[in-house]
Amino acid sequence: MSRIGFVGLGIMGTPMAANLVRAGHEVLGHDVDAGRVGQLVAAGGTAAGSVAAATEADVVVTMLPDSPQVEEVVLGPGGVLEHAKPGLLLVDASTIRPDVAERVAREAAERGVRALDAPVSGGEKGAVDGTLSIMVGGATGDVEAARPVLDVVGGTVVHVGPSGAGQTVKAANQLVVAGTYALVAEAIVLLEASGVDPAPALDVLAGGLAASRVLELKRASMIAREFTPGFRIDLHHKDMGIALAAARDAGVALPVTGVVAQLVAAARAQGLGALDHSALLMVLETISGRDYR
Amino acid sequence: MSRIGFVGLGIMGTPMAANLVRAGHEVLGHDVDAGRVGQLVAAGGTAAGSVAAATEADVVVTMLPDSPQVEEVVLGPGGVLEHAKPGLLLVDASTIRPDVAERVAREAAERGVRALDAPVSGGEKGAVDGTLSIMVGGATGDVEAARPVLDVVGGTVVHVGPSGAGQTVKAANQLVVAGTYALVAEAIVLLEASGVDPAPALDVLAGGLAASRVLELKRASMIAREFTPGFRIDLHHKDMGIALAAARDAGVALPVTGVVAQLVAAARAQGLGALDHSALLMVLETISGRDYR
Repeated sequence: MSRIGFVGLGIMGTPMAANLVRAGHEVLGHDVDAGRVGQLVAAGGTAAGSVAAATEADVVVTMLPDSPQVEEVVLGPGGVLEHAKPGLLLVDASTIRPDVAERVAREAAERGVRALDAPVSGGEKGAVDGTLSIMVGGATGDVEAARPVLDVVGGTVVHVGPSGAGQTVKAANQLVVAGTYALVAEAIVLLEASGVDPAPALDVLAGGLAASRVLELKRASMIAREFTPGFRIDLHHKDMGIALAAARDAGVALPVTGVVAQLVAAARAQGLGALDHSALLMVLETISGRDYR
Repeated sequence: MSRIGFVGLGIMGTPMAANLVRAGHEVLGHDVDAGRVGQLVAAGGTAAGSVAAATEADVVVTMLPDSPQVEEVVLGPGGVLEHAKPGLLLVDASTIRPDVAERVAREAAERGVRALDAPVSGGEKGAVDGTLSIMVGGATGDVEAARPVLDVVGGTVVHVGPSGAGQTVKAANQLVVAGTYALVAEAIVLLEASGVDPAPALDVLAGGLAASRVLELKRASMIAREFTPGFRIDLHHKDMGIALAAARDAGVALPVTGVVAQLVAAARAQGLGALDHSALLMVLETISGRDYR
């Protein structure tokens, strides 16, 4: 069993850390909001008063909102790299820009720290159930060393390439998911505006080449305009920014993703940020002057 | 058993008509290209020298390339409506504009002919195997009357609404399919340009919320750049035109579909029209200056 520092105890981080406690690990939990540590302590974890305290461990897992927080917590003054003992394994489960993940890995290596980018998908339910999909970038030996920890929080753990590759795959995942919501939304708008009942129509689509997990899981709630998250528009907006930054960095143009990203931005601009990402449907309705409220 | 006229013996029509023969129906086959009738005759069908001859039947099935051909064969001089006996059941299996399907149904009703729009999906394989998905628009009684015929050529037959609704659902299907190809293509471009092996990456995507039938069936051939049709870009280009015409007719704007339609048009402009629709990947590569040849 390992001693694991866990930094970032939000909606995803808290159940992930609790699963590590349940698996027998000693977990030193930290969050900028000290109030959030209580839930982990109740689950059998230990409160760490600072990043430095959480770094007194063999493995540090970070689960933070975005690239700037990871830069601050890992690279900044008082951060993980400043306090790490050589050989520390750093697993960043946050979804951030691939280039930042590469920089973290580079600076970590200079300090003798082994860093992995390990963004997850599967949402709060996957975090609670320990069934997250984890896309891991980094050196093979480091991925193997981290596997006992990753296997506790994840159901599917795939080593997809060197440092940054995990984040690139997550970006690809998020652009496909948002785009699929936009396509299903446009299908619903066309069907309803044409006077066609979308329920049997989408049943047909879900049985053919148009089938997708989004259609399978979300067509009923989208038709009913039930947009309780789930995964919030605000977070998907952040992820679309990461996808387009990754594309810029790789020197490619993604025209469909560009349009979809602007539609997600519109959802946020229309005050829908706290709703489920399937609420992209409301943006497509608004564009065509169809009132959704 | 019925006497069935079948007009349009192309890649789809010939196996559909042959399945009707096999099910015990008398099939009167016609095509503008008389040479195409031979295969049906060899399968046990009867050659009809004209549309009028094929219309000497209880049911007429049309399987034609596009809206103008349906207007000509059904509404034009010497066409189905001119020769139909009252009570004839007209099943148009072509993929055409919903407004044309509505007009066909309206003019058919004036002649005492019962018309259904019944576009299919499932491709040549579905036509040969008799497992097509069929989206049927029309009156409930007429759909029930046609069901013995539809069940021979289709595996899934869904009555989706009144006249034109079948075509609207087909249009929605085609916009989702083309859009999904574009999204998977952009994911592949981003991954490869970032130096990430797309095979394990797309395996991860196919296991989560980004999953789709397109990813399931086509990711390996897309990564390998194998674009043997399947369903040709030329035909999907036609269908995107139908989807945008349907949107215009319904008074809605579909921004993602608009972009995707232009990418399909680009594929055609680049001489890729005879390749499988998954060849949309080549367009996304060209846009980013990545050579695919």
